[in-house]
Amino acid sequence: MKSYRKELWFEVPGRCGFVNITGQVEQCLTESEVREGLVLVNAMHITASVFINDNESGLHQDYEKWLEELAPHEPVSQYRHNRTGEDNADAHLKRQIMGREVVVAITQSQLDFGPWEQIFYGEFDGRRRKRVPNYRRMIFHNSFDFHASYDIVDQPGI
Amino acid sequence: MKSYRKELWFEVPGRCGFVNITGQVEQCLTESEVREGLVLVNAMHITASVFINDNESGLHQDYEKWLEELAPHEPVSQYRHNRTGEDNADAHLKRQIMGREVVVAITQSQLDFGPWEQIFYGEFDGRRRKRVPNYRRMIFHNSFDFHASYDIVDQPGI
Amino acid sequence: MKSYRKELWFEVPGRCGFVNITGQVEQCLTESEVREGLVLVNAMHITASVFINDNESGLHQDYEKWLEELAPHEPVSQYRHNRTGEDNADAHLKRQIMGREVVVAITQSQLDFGPWEQIFYGEFDGRRRKRVPNYRRMIFHNSFDFHASYDIVDQPGI
Repeated sequence: MKSYRKELWFEVPGRCGFVNITGQVEQCLTESEVREGLVLVNAMHITASVFINDNESGLHQDYEKWLEELAPHEPVSQYRHNRTGEDNADAHLKRQIMGREVVVAITQSQLDFGPWEQIFYGEFDGRRRKRVPNYRRMIFHNSFDFHASYDIVDQPGI
Repeated sequence: MKSYRKELWFEVPGRCGFVNITGQVEQCLTESEVREGLVLVNAMHITASVFINDNESGLHQDYEKWLEELAPHEPVSQYRHNRTGEDNADAHLKRQIMGREVVVAITQSQLDFGPWEQIFYGEFDGRRRKRVPNYRRMIFHNSFDFHASYDIVDQPGI
Repeated sequence: MKSYRKELWFEVPGRCGFVNITGQVEQCLTESEVREGLVLVNAMHITASVFINDNESGLHQDYEKWLEELAPHEPVSQYRHNRTGEDNADAHLKRQIMGREVVVAITQSQLDFGPWEQIFYGEFDGRRRKRVPNYRRMIFHNSFDFHASYDIVDQPGI
């Protein structure tokens, strides 16, 4: 049994942005030499998300518009949190909709994904000019098992 | 230590529907012979959810109505994603509210649940006439440990 | 490899409330003697959440106001679930926004957290006068691994 941990760092130039990190997570998986197990991928910042959905830019624009409707950035004065001097209360709300983390099964050294699943880092408070450098961290963590068993039903199609 | 994986398949006749899969997950757990550990249950499609809540049909109707208010299907032209030829952008949004996966503790060969917890497969883009067959996959994955310790505080009631 | 389980109990006097449970989870971690692994922390009630965000009271007020807008408690007659005699349908909806559970990496016997991450128990149907006693349960569950490897990239800052 092994445990493997890696931090990934991102810089999102706009306030909101989605980064496809599937390739980086797969690279971590290769480095870890894990064959069977679970991987946890989570944002380490509380105004960002890690989530699984479609790698389609139109959908990402839909997400951004929709989240802005559900938790508008402006007026910043509508949020008590912003009385602390921040202007990112909306980002804390958006992150709850999109989630903090994903847990993915690893099967035969691969992410055990459906046909369209991709992992994204979602940033809702990028462009952190207040802090230099403005990198944002994400963690990759997994564990594995030597003795796997499979009981895959006859697959009628996808 | 063992790892066990099984795919379950569903067909939801309407666009939206909730299927109680608790019994199927318990069956997987029995087959896996896992006594202590974690189970990951996730949708493999990005317009579907696996979530834990109440097995009450009125509540499921409330969920359907509420999700339709938060992310309406019509007009389909309001979503950029639908310019790809799809009409399911709303389903990608609804899935984020309800979540992709659940992780459940296994204790003494049982799902370690509170009194009302049940696992549901939530479909937001069923009736996929475009694809035949229109089955939807879900994955069950777990691992376990021989040496468990418990520190259950005196339970004052539920 | 070890598995450790503990139940924590809470009583929230109002209908909605957020309890910072980070210290209690850290105490569980110490008791478990886990050095590397994953911890699952989940609510066992379906009108409550466990989530990770900021320990800032203004933000918690923002969450409460925002959730009330997205899923209003009144009028209770708007929800079919409430025809069962309950008045808590809105709490079942709010819980889906905030989530049921968190999975956190354990690294060198610590919760592997970013700089602001704290764990909260979120209650959306407290003040359960209908049931005595009105304690609410949460579960802590983890597992660990002796052989950890780290590949932490040079950290350019937080």
